[in-house]
Order: sequence, then C-alpha cells, then structure tokens
Amino acid sequence: MDNKGILIVVSGFSGSGKGTLMKVLLEKYNNYALSISATTRKPREGEVEGVHYFYKSVEEFEKMIAKDELIEYARYVNNYYGTPRNYVESQLNAGKDVILEIEIQGALKVKNKYPETLLLFVTPPDAGTLERRLVGRGTETPDVIKSRMLRAAEEADGMDAYDYLIVNDDIEECRDEVHRIIQSEHCRCSRNTEFMNQIKEELRGNLKGEL
Amino acid sequence: MDNKGILIVVSGFSGSGKGTLMKVLLEKYNNYALSISATTRKPREGEVEGVHYFYKSVEEFEKMIAKDELIEYARYVNNYYGTPRNYVESQLNAGKDVILEIEIQGALKVKNKYPETLLLFVTPPDAGTLERRLVGRGTETPDVIKSRMLRAAEEADGMDAYDYLIVNDDIEECRDEVHRIIQSEHCRCSRNTEFMNQIKEELRGNLKGEL
Repeated sequence: MDNKGILIVVSGFSGSGKGTLMKVLLEKYNNYALSISATTRKPREGEVEGVHYFYKSVEEFEKMIAKDELIEYARYVNNYYGTPRNYVESQLNAGKDVILEIEIQGALKVKNKYPETLLLFVTPPDAGTLERRLVGRGTETPDVIKSRMLRAAEEADGMDAYDYLIVNDDIEECRDEVHRIIQSEHCRCSRNTEFMNQIKEELRGNLKGEL
Repeated sequence: MDNKGILIVVSGFSGSGKGTLMKVLLEKYNNYALSISATTRKPREGEVEGVHYFYKSVEEFEKMIAKDELIEYARYVNNYYGTPRNYVESQLNAGKDVILEIEIQGALKVKNKYPETLLLFVTPPDAGTLERRLVGRGTETPDVIKSRMLRAAEEADGMDAYDYLIVNDDIEECRDEVHRIIQSEHCRCSRNTEFMNQIKEELRGNLKGEL
C-alpha cells in the first residue's frame, strides 16, 4: 500500500473536547504529528517556541504569506495565525499522519488546496451536553456561554462539509474511533494509486510473458 | 448517530480469498447480513434454497425483472443471477450492514442505483501471490489459470471505481480491517444527516429560548 501520510483537519464546537481528544490520541498512537501553528501573538506564560507555536513578528509572518510558506492563515483580534507548509509536508512525506486543529474557514481553505485532506468534526452527543460542558467549566460568564452557543449554532451549519462526524461521549472510545477512521482511510483506493498501478503492471507483464 | 445499515459490495480477483473472508467476517461479527442471490441455475448437490440461492424458474426470474424486484441482475452461460431487493432493503432498515458479493459490472449498477453503496475490492498483495494461489488450488488446468489471470488483468482496470482496497495477506487481520472500514463509514457525515439536523435544530431552539 502507498506509504504517504494523510493530512487531517480536526474542527469542532468549543466544548466538544477536541483539544483533550488530540492529546490522548497522540499519547496512545505514535503515527501522528500535530501541526504547530505560526502566530504573531506574544507567548503566554509557560508557552514554548516550537511546541505551542512558532512565534513570529508581523514582518516575518507577512514574508511567509508572500512566499506561500503557509497552507492557510487567518487574522483574529489583530494577530495572525497560520499553518507552516514545510513542517506539514516533511511529516507527510515521512509517512506520518499530520493533524491540524483549525476552525471551519481554515479547514475549507486547506481542503481546497489539498483535496485529499480528511476533515473530522468533533461534536458532543447533543446540544444540551455541549451547554452543560460550557457551563460546567465554571470559568465563563453567562454572556460568554451564550456567545459560544451562538457560535456553535453557526458552526453547525458547516458540519456537512466535513468527511466524518466524531461524537465525543466517552473520550477513550472516541480516541480509538478517530484512530480507526484515519487508519481505514489509508485503505482508500484514491490514496493507493501507486499500489494499484503496480498490480496492474504486474498482471499485464505476467500475461505478456505467458500468453 | 443515524441507525441505517450500509449496503456493501465486495468484489475481487478470483483467488483473492474474498469468499473465505466473508465467511470469517460473518462468523466473528453479528451486525452483517449476506445478501442471497436469486438464480435460474439448478441447485447443485448440497445447496439449500434460501441459504445458497433462491432458485427460480426463468419465468419467475423474468417476472422479478419486470416488477423491478432485483437491484441488479446478469446472465451468465444461459442462467440468470440477481440480487432481490426485498431482502436487502428490509435488512438495511433493521440496521444491518448488507454485503453483496458480486463482480464489477454488477457493483457499478448497484452504486448507480444506491449512491451510498460502499464498494470494497479484495486483492492479494501482488500479482505473483494471486497466480500462486490459483496454481496452488491444484484443481485448475494451466488454460483455466491463464484465463483467470487474463480476467484479473481486466478486472484490475476497474479497481479505481471502488472506495476501498482490501489487501488480503493475513485472513484474520484482513477480516478485522474490513470490519473497521465499515464501522468507520458509519461515522461519515453523509450517512448522518438526521443526527446533524437534530443537533442544528437543538442549537437553534436553545438560542431562541435564551437570547
């Protein structure tokens, strides 16, 4: 079978638990690489260059844009965030499945550039669970919760553009399900054109010799 | 998640081991139903009506065609073979994943009628293994083996039309891989429109009450 890694975008509602999900996925399975974003935002306490982000000046970031060194980028609250192409492509070529944790606009841009990208959308089993999780954190004001629920309603309209729906009810089951889905995708015919071409050639060559 | 079964077509080279594969799959997992074909061929020694085939007269079979009671049918060596719609649809509605073991022309007809059909193609790891398996049976003349290899070369050209490639190297690994692929397909967004619509409605309803 072909040995190239798969580019995977993981999105999901705030409160869907996708951050934890990625953490436990990478802890259990070692064939994944998490893409590290570049940003012009200043490092927060405890954040490490090359682990949490690649920290760039606005000038550096804009140079990366100009040189097409970013797969996708966006600007939030006066800061740039983007996905460096270099790291992603080198990991894919090494056979690693590379995961980008980005929201829907970015996901669609990536899919547009790399049509073989696998889009996963993480959701709680129902809207009530989503709200309870947001409330349960205990750290958000009612206004923030409402604005997150409003955002969730908007994001829900984008779910159809994704390939798979990941219902995050039990975190460990969910982690294994994500792994199973990605591994299954490695068997897709469209991801194994080299293997198929080889078998076709072998069969033709075999016949030429024999018939 | 939506509870409807998936219609699955399994094809593969003669000698790919797909018959054995289906047998062990159904032995281990109980959420599958194997479709039973209708045929006008006479029962062979030991074959049982409703287990191996539904045996029909030519008149009965042609009546089934006229009434659109077959998902697909074909004629080989003066006998009709076809897939009765009734059994397949009742099993799908009961949430079973229904497997049809048919060749490529039939597979494409089914996919055309039921676009959500999952097409699996079973192949040995390489052409040499395929030939060794055909020779290894010890029951076929060199001419038969050559004609099967020729047919395999033709069939190989159709592989690209399938969704997944199943490389049958180790039968038990392969069985679990097929199961994993089918279960992963249950998480496809396109197979969960009811679930997605429900979550969208819940989120909208929630906001209406709150904002």
